[in-house]
Amino acid sequence: MNILVINAGSSSLKYQLIEMPSQVVKCIGLVERIGMEDAIFTHEKDAEKHSEVAPILNHEIGLKKIAKTLMDPKIGVITSVDEIKAIGHRVVHGGSRYSGTVLITEKVKFNIKDLFDLAPLHNPAHLTGIEVAETIFTSAKQTAVFDTAFHQTMPKEAYQYAIPNTYLKENKVRAYGFHGSSHKYVSEKAIEYLDKKSSKIITIHLGNGCSMAAVKDGKCIDTSMGFSPTNGLVMGTRAGDIDQSVIFFLMKKLNKSADEVNDLLQKESGMKGLTGFSDLREIEENAGNGNEDCKNALKLAGYRIKKFIGAYAAALNGLDAIVFTAGIGENSSLMRHLSCSNLEFLGIELNNSKNEIRSKEIREIQKEPSKVKILVIPTNEELEIAKETYDLLK
Amino acid sequence: MNILVINAGSSSLKYQLIEMPSQVVKCIGLVERIGMEDAIFTHEKDAEKHSEVAPILNHEIGLKKIAKTLMDPKIGVITSVDEIKAIGHRVVHGGSRYSGTVLITEKVKFNIKDLFDLAPLHNPAHLTGIEVAETIFTSAKQTAVFDTAFHQTMPKEAYQYAIPNTYLKENKVRAYGFHGSSHKYVSEKAIEYLDKKSSKIITIHLGNGCSMAAVKDGKCIDTSMGFSPTNGLVMGTRAGDIDQSVIFFLMKKLNKSADEVNDLLQKESGMKGLTGFSDLREIEENAGNGNEDCKNALKLAGYRIKKFIGAYAAALNGLDAIVFTAGIGENSSLMRHLSCSNLEFLGIELNNSKNEIRSKEIREIQKEPSKVKILVIPTNEELEIAKETYDLLK
Repeated sequence: MNILVINAGSSSLKYQLIEMPSQVVKCIGLVERIGMEDAIFTHEKDAEKHSEVAPILNHEIGLKKIAKTLMDPKIGVITSVDEIKAIGHRVVHGGSRYSGTVLITEKVKFNIKDLFDLAPLHNPAHLTGIEVAETIFTSAKQTAVFDTAFHQTMPKEAYQYAIPNTYLKENKVRAYGFHGSSHKYVSEKAIEYLDKKSSKIITIHLGNGCSMAAVKDGKCIDTSMGFSPTNGLVMGTRAGDIDQSVIFFLMKKLNKSADEVNDLLQKESGMKGLTGFSDLREIEENAGNGNEDCKNALKLAGYRIKKFIGAYAAALNGLDAIVFTAGIGENSSLMRHLSCSNLEFLGIELNNSKNEIRSKEIREIQKEPSKVKILVIPTNEELEIAKETYDLLK
Repeated sequence: MNILVINAGSSSLKYQLIEMPSQVVKCIGLVERIGMEDAIFTHEKDAEKHSEVAPILNHEIGLKKIAKTLMDPKIGVITSVDEIKAIGHRVVHGGSRYSGTVLITEKVKFNIKDLFDLAPLHNPAHLTGIEVAETIFTSAKQTAVFDTAFHQTMPKEAYQYAIPNTYLKENKVRAYGFHGSSHKYVSEKAIEYLDKKSSKIITIHLGNGCSMAAVKDGKCIDTSMGFSPTNGLVMGTRAGDIDQSVIFFLMKKLNKSADEVNDLLQKESGMKGLTGFSDLREIEENAGNGNEDCKNALKLAGYRIKKFIGAYAAALNGLDAIVFTAGIGENSSLMRHLSCSNLEFLGIELNNSKNEIRSKEIREIQKEPSKVKILVIPTNEELEIAKETYDLLK
């Protein structure tokens, strides 16, 4: 079964065509800068890259371009859109309604729309992607795979905030958690790898966005992102946890509007705010050259991860493995080192030379006597979306 | 040396007259509802309580009333104000300027005033208390003992937020921590009790306000309250940690002003917001009678403490003891139970029958095999202020 996985952003469309259950990736691609005269389209098949710059003024034009490319005699992989049996859409926010993948219906679209307020940067783009896909791939089944779904197993004490109950009941203000497909994918891989019936795992997803999850016997019991994807760890441009009084101080004392403060915390904070750089490689390089701000920022980011490891070890009352994943988690040996150093009390001991090895495979990087395994597991959200879609439809 | 300890609030004046170094408390008292026709004045000497209702329209009248009572032939303890050699003032916010107790000078008063923005509910009242005390106790030395001072030893990765550096440098936006006199007092008592040269301790101050501190060899390395006394644990009416996007949601979606949201998070949230009650005894009683909101709120509050225990055990990379203190910490066996249950992985095992014993003494309440000691240590912020003042002046 050919499944097209689509991740529609506000000005981008990422896609992969995956054959299931073989898990063969037939092609991957990306449309960037949608809405611009100089949008960028990239398509890759058999490690051969095709790219072009063209005006792609909206998602419909972008997705039509993708469909045409998929059927291109030279760089395409199918001959008719009917060969795509299903489309799996990434949807960031599923609220508390969805704890699993669903077939998209009018009701589902209504609910995705109803959550626009909770994910203003993501859900509108996803809905556009879905509606455009319906007009182009008319015979394909469409599914929604929610970033929040995996975290729906959290107990109330983990998802509730200590504010008047009415905001939970009436306005659904609670922690949802994000990056669910990634946490689910790597925690399942870890459980399979550990081959244990009962397991206590902490998954650490470090990419542009960063989040952690405490996973007990395969079920999420806590996660560091909350009501929106801004809380918890220090990220590329997002502040993560911050004292709420800072927000009121910035508004009252520095005369900023709520939107300005929100923008500041989302787009100008995190590693960028602390260093002036938002690419971690640049920050590591500058830290290596003695830049104090970069050294501080790395320490701060690592320390925040370390505290969440401790908090989740307490929540789990035990720990079999911690798992690093996503761009930074898989590639930054320094960030893994900063997160794992001086944690012998929790049974965590990093092997420094194993930590330096680069690989696309699952690997263990702890010292021999370490009670807790430290794993690096490459994430694959697209494959998770394809699996979820396949499991629903098969 | 007679030291008068004064804790001036916006509409209250708490005091104790303590003889140092003997630590004998000669009398304690409180003026409440300052500014009202029916203010309440309470004074206690030798366990004998005197109380009256009278118009006390400002702090000056209140403090004059206290001075007169201290010299009262029947319920007083001195014959002249000159017998008071020093006055130790509690000051909530000392910013990053003060890491210890200081003699009050014009410069100190200027700095306390300069921090009004960071502690709008507390510092103005403290300054009033200081200025009035100077006019009445003209021969006494006056000292300021800051709630923030004990936490000034935190490393940068613990006090810095991941927002642009300029806010730290220009606006002093950082975590300060509060309840410092209490954390210092009980951590010193714990270290003395443990009789260890090197120690790793977590202090848990649970009163109307709640905060925790990680204390390594007597020095604070992290604490749960940050820029203001609102973050971290769930408190009587304060929310503690919350996703910052909730603030923007409440403002944009529910059309609340910043002040309304701030008030909501400070005065209508926490245990009160979750249950409708703000007295923990009522909440425990109702939970016992099956009230689901009360049961949830207690679970949530205990779970938050538990996660901070884990986070600080990670930050300390070890743990000798956790210390419960203040009204709730000393008296609620249920809250101690909820915070300590299922933490065997960290070496924490509560002895349930020892946990039920009530006492005014330091006590151990862990099980025999528990690697980590669980201590209950009654706090005494007034005595800490008297000690600090005595040490500075002797």
